[in-house]
Amino acid sequence: MRYRADIEYDGTAYCGFQRQKAQPSIQETIERTISSLSGREVRLIAAGRTDSGVHASGQVIAFDLEWRHSPEDLVQAINSNLPADIVVIGLIETERDFHPRFQARSRTYEYHIYNRTVRSPLRRMHAWHVTRPLDVGVMKQTAASIVGTKDFATFGQPPQGVNTVRQVFSADWERREELLVFSVEANAFLYRMVRSLVGTMKMVGDGSWTVVDFVDALVACDRNRAAQTAPPNGVFLKSVSYE
Amino acid sequence: MRYRADIEYDGTAYCGFQRQKAQPSIQETIERTISSLSGREVRLIAAGRTDSGVHASGQVIAFDLEWRHSPEDLVQAINSNLPADIVVIGLIETERDFHPRFQARSRTYEYHIYNRTVRSPLRRMHAWHVTRPLDVGVMKQTAASIVGTKDFATFGQPPQGVNTVRQVFSADWERREELLVFSVEANAFLYRMVRSLVGTMKMVGDGSWTVVDFVDALVACDRNRAAQTAPPNGVFLKSVSYE
Repeated sequence: MRYRADIEYDGTAYCGFQRQKAQPSIQETIERTISSLSGREVRLIAAGRTDSGVHASGQVIAFDLEWRHSPEDLVQAINSNLPADIVVIGLIETERDFHPRFQARSRTYEYHIYNRTVRSPLRRMHAWHVTRPLDVGVMKQTAASIVGTKDFATFGQPPQGVNTVRQVFSADWERREELLVFSVEANAFLYRMVRSLVGTMKMVGDGSWTVVDFVDALVACDRNRAAQTAPPNGVFLKSVSYE
Repeated sequence: MRYRADIEYDGTAYCGFQRQKAQPSIQETIERTISSLSGREVRLIAAGRTDSGVHASGQVIAFDLEWRHSPEDLVQAINSNLPADIVVIGLIETERDFHPRFQARSRTYEYHIYNRTVRSPLRRMHAWHVTRPLDVGVMKQTAASIVGTKDFATFGQPPQGVNTVRQVFSADWERREELLVFSVEANAFLYRMVRSLVGTMKMVGDGSWTVVDFVDALVACDRNRAAQTAPPNGVFLKSVSYE
């Protein structure tokens, strides 16, 4: 039987989703937990390979497992064996050929910046600290400029192949007191695309760049035209949608 | 010279604000940092002694220090020596007799509950996980019932003396998606009063108690009439106000 699970994790302590030698990964931690329940080695596939330090509140994984009890019992068994920084939010039986990455219609990410002079102990794991005042109005304009089917070569490399065209369904910035939240939904993302977009949009927000500079960099389709890549701890994979 | 500093901290790794033997406290950590800058032993006084695991975004402290440079330089020097989970947000020179506890007009606390079936890795340090669905409407009624000058003996012991009367200026619950936030401002609080109120209000929220049960417990002025004390990791000391 193939199962689909929606998972949440705090990526702070991990080298990222994907299994790596000699470093704790989200994938290995979940695989070990499920394998220990079944007595057989279980392998996961995931909708997205989040970087080291990146978080998720709606990552989607799939795995094959022989399980005699209910899906609810399986959730309970997995969650009581996972560490405190990873959890299964929901789990269903799915089609034998369900593939969480290839079949995804879109992914939604958030990026959190907190904008004030001094660093924040309470936000330090889950947001990027930017000290220069940010103008959310011009950042909203940069977000609007990326919506549509465009070549995003400026903002990342493709995970495989050479195609850097992606379709962004929606993108916006919102201010919640000292927190600035970027929400973006696209059919797929290039490697580090969210962090590269945010790092460059921040240049517009703090007045170093104009909105036109941003759009010029976008249409240049040149990786060297992006500004700094924002740190990973502000990224959240919020959800993955399927047909 | 006496200084007033407003500080933020993540209380997760500490035994509370107050200095204790053989356990790391917020107080000791800050005192050690400031003492090392001045070469003399510095002692702090604070507006409130937060419990082990309790957080603050607006604790107020005072200390005496010989410092030849500007307050801005002092903030910089302290913050670059404090660990990542404590920071000085603001600092000013103040009157020689300023006492952050005795002179406080009011304190404002928040308590965060997240209300869903499964635990949350992303909220685990900063909110109480309650699985049974909570009705924020009835919880707002319990909050309204504590506003005014009342005897809160049911919800805590006085830190010293026997007076359990406190004046609550405002109290309310608000739902922000799966997060429930309690905000309360009072002239002062009994020991563990916020946590005891929240633990008891939660009984009303999940239907175990009625609003009348809550009010009956309040007016009974009997510590045994409170329900469980909510865990410390949901508490935030938000601000302290002075004349």
